[in-house]
Amino acid sequence: MAKELRFVMLLDCYGDLLTEHQRNVMELYYCEDLSLAEIGNPLGITRQAVLSLIKRTENILLNYEEKLGFAERLSGIRACIDRIRSGADSIPDKKLRDNITDEIDNISKLL
Amino acid sequence: MAKELRFVMLLDCYGDLLTEHQRNVMELYYCEDLSLAEIGNPLGITRQAVLSLIKRTENILLNYEEKLGFAERLSGIRACIDRIRSGADSIPDKKLRDNITDEIDNISKLL
Repeated sequence: MAKELRFVMLLDCYGDLLTEHQRNVMELYYCEDLSLAEIGNPLGITRQAVLSLIKRTENILLNYEEKLGFAERLSGIRACIDRIRSGADSIPDKKLRDNITDEIDNISKLL
Repeated sequence: MAKELRFVMLLDCYGDLLTEHQRNVMELYYCEDLSLAEIGNPLGITRQAVLSLIKRTENILLNYEEKLGFAERLSGIRACIDRIRSGADSIPDKKLRDNITDEIDNISKLL
């Protein structure tokens, strides 16, 4: 099973809808990059049980994304504001450039 | 009970996580502006049952927003891009202005 960046993004988006146990195991696996055994041992559960929990939780996250699509939308907005930021650098008027850059920074904080 | 704009936004954000029945009743009440009796009669349920379903579903939506905050974030991004759009109108260089306006349009489609 590849540790995909996609699930890090989905976890970031929808992690708060998971149970604490689901979120904890997913973060150890996807963000801390621990192995199934390293996750299972301290919890007293087998590698197979950890894998099974991860798979079930992946499906929960994919289901949220299929219904809401926020991860893809936020990622698309991120790409657009990166291009606006590049363009804004070429605005000769400092005040206008700063105003637009400030708004881009505001959007970044909301993503 | 005031028919608040907030629930129209939350319904727009999280409506796909509701059951078809919940979403249907909420849309009739908040988007089509039907009364409790107008909603309940064709479904064969009392005004009180409709009200109770609406209240329960409002809490579900508020709970999603409390955990994910997407409605507020998207609304904040919308305000920022409106200000970027106003500013972009003053960019003298047509090509740069068009590029930035195109990206703003792309973001609008994702909101």
